[in-house]
Amino acid sequence: MSIDPRVAGGLRDVPPAVMIPRERMTASFRKTFASFGFVPIETPHIERMEVLAGKGAGSDEVLRQIFEVVNKGGEAGKLALRFDLTVPFARFVAKHIHDLGTPFKRYAIGSVFRGERPAKGRFREFTQCDFDAVGTESAVADAETAQVIHAALSAAGVPAFTIALNNRRVLDGLLDSLGLADRTARVLRALDKLAKVGREAVIAELRGKPADEEAGPGGPGLAADEAARVLDFAEAGRGGVEVLGPVEAALGGHPRAAEGIANLRSVFALLDAAGVPASALKIDLGLARGLDYYTGIVYETTVDGWERFGSVSSGGRYDDLASLFTDRRLPGVGASIGLDRLLALMEEAGALGGAATTVPVLVANFPGVDPSVPVGLASRLRRAGVGAEVYPDPIQVGKQMGYGSTRGHKVAVIVGPDEAALRTFNLRDLATRRERKAIPWDGLESAVAGALGGAS
Amino acid sequence: MSIDPRVAGGLRDVPPAVMIPRERMTASFRKTFASFGFVPIETPHIERMEVLAGKGAGSDEVLRQIFEVVNKGGEAGKLALRFDLTVPFARFVAKHIHDLGTPFKRYAIGSVFRGERPAKGRFREFTQCDFDAVGTESAVADAETAQVIHAALSAAGVPAFTIALNNRRVLDGLLDSLGLADRTARVLRALDKLAKVGREAVIAELRGKPADEEAGPGGPGLAADEAARVLDFAEAGRGGVEVLGPVEAALGGHPRAAEGIANLRSVFALLDAAGVPASALKIDLGLARGLDYYTGIVYETTVDGWERFGSVSSGGRYDDLASLFTDRRLPGVGASIGLDRLLALMEEAGALGGAATTVPVLVANFPGVDPSVPVGLASRLRRAGVGAEVYPDPIQVGKQMGYGSTRGHKVAVIVGPDEAALRTFNLRDLATRRERKAIPWDGLESAVAGALGGAS
Repeated sequence: MSIDPRVAGGLRDVPPAVMIPRERMTASFRKTFASFGFVPIETPHIERMEVLAGKGAGSDEVLRQIFEVVNKGGEAGKLALRFDLTVPFARFVAKHIHDLGTPFKRYAIGSVFRGERPAKGRFREFTQCDFDAVGTESAVADAETAQVIHAALSAAGVPAFTIALNNRRVLDGLLDSLGLADRTARVLRALDKLAKVGREAVIAELRGKPADEEAGPGGPGLAADEAARVLDFAEAGRGGVEVLGPVEAALGGHPRAAEGIANLRSVFALLDAAGVPASALKIDLGLARGLDYYTGIVYETTVDGWERFGSVSSGGRYDDLASLFTDRRLPGVGASIGLDRLLALMEEAGALGGAATTVPVLVANFPGVDPSVPVGLASRLRRAGVGAEVYPDPIQVGKQMGYGSTRGHKVAVIVGPDEAALRTFNLRDLATRRERKAIPWDGLESAVAGALGGAS
Repeated sequence: MSIDPRVAGGLRDVPPAVMIPRERMTASFRKTFASFGFVPIETPHIERMEVLAGKGAGSDEVLRQIFEVVNKGGEAGKLALRFDLTVPFARFVAKHIHDLGTPFKRYAIGSVFRGERPAKGRFREFTQCDFDAVGTESAVADAETAQVIHAALSAAGVPAFTIALNNRRVLDGLLDSLGLADRTARVLRALDKLAKVGREAVIAELRGKPADEEAGPGGPGLAADEAARVLDFAEAGRGGVEVLGPVEAALGGHPRAAEGIANLRSVFALLDAAGVPASALKIDLGLARGLDYYTGIVYETTVDGWERFGSVSSGGRYDDLASLFTDRRLPGVGASIGLDRLLALMEEAGALGGAATTVPVLVANFPGVDPSVPVGLASRLRRAGVGAEVYPDPIQVGKQMGYGSTRGHKVAVIVGPDEAALRTFNLRDLATRRERKAIPWDGLESAVAGALGGAS
């Protein structure tokens, strides 16, 4: 009786056709992150529960979803799987920053685990790609974060996208000037729904009364004119850097708002100097996601025409990364790219190739021919930098060609007994089935390069 | 009161200076695997306990070390962390092979978990790099496995190494011809210690009586002349393909031994055709590790002069990968590269660079100069394919240079107020501290390329 080979609910296998573009994308991200001086680190998948469950480390919802880890002889409740890469990073920084020094710029790509109720598109294990610069409050680092998002997505072949920028201080200044500073969290929560539910519904929520003192249900209880002012502000504050003009006129006297406006202006100027096209950037002063966590600039990135997939990269500036673990104040800024979401979007947009191989050449293993011949020819191709696969078994050549066509090989090198005697090969285009015959072995590399140049 | 930022026992953080060569190595492995037509897959870190604890999936020792995983509302004993990549691969193949077809060649690089007692150099989470070809019994696949080991280690910069080859059938034939077929497991276990304990100790174990019927302590109880023959055989069967001559003369009449000898001859011929140098290969007919699991060829690789680190890549052929999960017989061959061990060895051998950055250029953020200048220059370098980091804060330039020297940047681009006015920069070699002054901005890419050509 066999064991059922299924995976547990909410988990998944990644087959080659998905894994190939996924690896290409993570390799591209690593290269981009590194080109800006970010360095890789890795932390264990298993952390001490005390680290993960520390006050403020994760939301109550995230903590409810935590996976505990126990081994024989181990005590329950002591270890768990990480639910993000941020808490482990904060712990890492607290432990190692003395040796590493600041500024410290790291990236990390890895699996995180949340025991969510299994549902379509929701997985209990997924990948995060994070990069952060800690130990600096510079607008250069703020701009660089947007620049890295732009460079990483561009290099990975993501179609046209827009990075929306906001700075929490601007909204803080507005609410403070309206005498609503104590209701910021509820205002942000309502505002965050603007794109989804529309103006009227947000106004209704802004006018709703809080059900209790803390973060429970209900709105901030704004007066009609207050709610309208917040909405007008959010809607007017969308566009290029020019939207900051009227905002400055209205709020520039408020020190906190002025800081936020100046930061956004600096960031736009730096991004312009960096050659990031203005068409890929917009200011959105109503952008409220994450503003309860972040303390300065925030980023949210959507692919143009695919906004319904939500943000594919978000982040922002924080005042103090590792306060749970150290007294040393470590301000920083960073963002995360949602690899799984991005791949799902690109697959749906037809922007991923579907090949189940990355190797362009299949070398046939012709029945009756010494297999040293295909093995030797394939090795020559690899030494010339061309990936080549030898079919392992000397089965009927038509079946070998079928294998190549199905997997996505572009051309096949075929040496039958006659060709072997003459030291020649035939080169078949697996898409058109056209075959160039009797090419001498000496011409292998150039013939294949020529065929691939044409085939690709 | 802060939370202690330590990691749990037996786990570890990987800092940049270790992670940089590690990422370079895994990227190199992926590239090599792919160049032979192996494709990547990923399976979840969490598997159903039933899959991991299936009879024969793991040794009793491994199963004792398993980490259970439980989330709120989940039942204990149902889920666990994988302890290797082989069992998940077998499950994956049983589940997906109908869609994927054979031959199926995959690689996988990932973390596995074992609750070993923490000790120096032993970790509870470590990385495996596996590649396998299933659905073929061809000697071409056997040879390719050794070829991939050779190509992967060479491309990753591993110093001179030797791949030892054996085929279980040869030893089976010997023992059968001596009438000892029923004692194979105990003989292999004794033989496996030859390199460590020497001839006399192995003879003593071979002559020892079994303590019980099954796999308990004690030896196979060989007579003195039997033990001597086994040892002579193991010691004579070490060297190039020529050692097979006398073995063939002695054992060639035994069908199983003849199969093993023919396989090793084919593999050597194919590896010669593939251009793998004979100096990187040896036959070792006494090589017994893994022979209780493998059914044909086996591989074990040591770095020359660093044999005490043990094997850095091992593997072999198996008759039936996924018998726990499917009735379909899936023979295959594969190997695993021990990334952690290899990196530890290379670090001790001084074969890893120690830099804490991968970026060659630091662009100074000079006090009083518009930061758009360094940001713009760095972007130009990146567009030219040269990694460049901008120091985020306009602190004293000497401190910025100290940051670069410590991290391992090679050169610094410096634009002070005078240079900014003249649109020039100074280029400092961070090792020699020599500085070329007043280079026009136009000459940025060529000046940096020239300096890096000289500095590297």
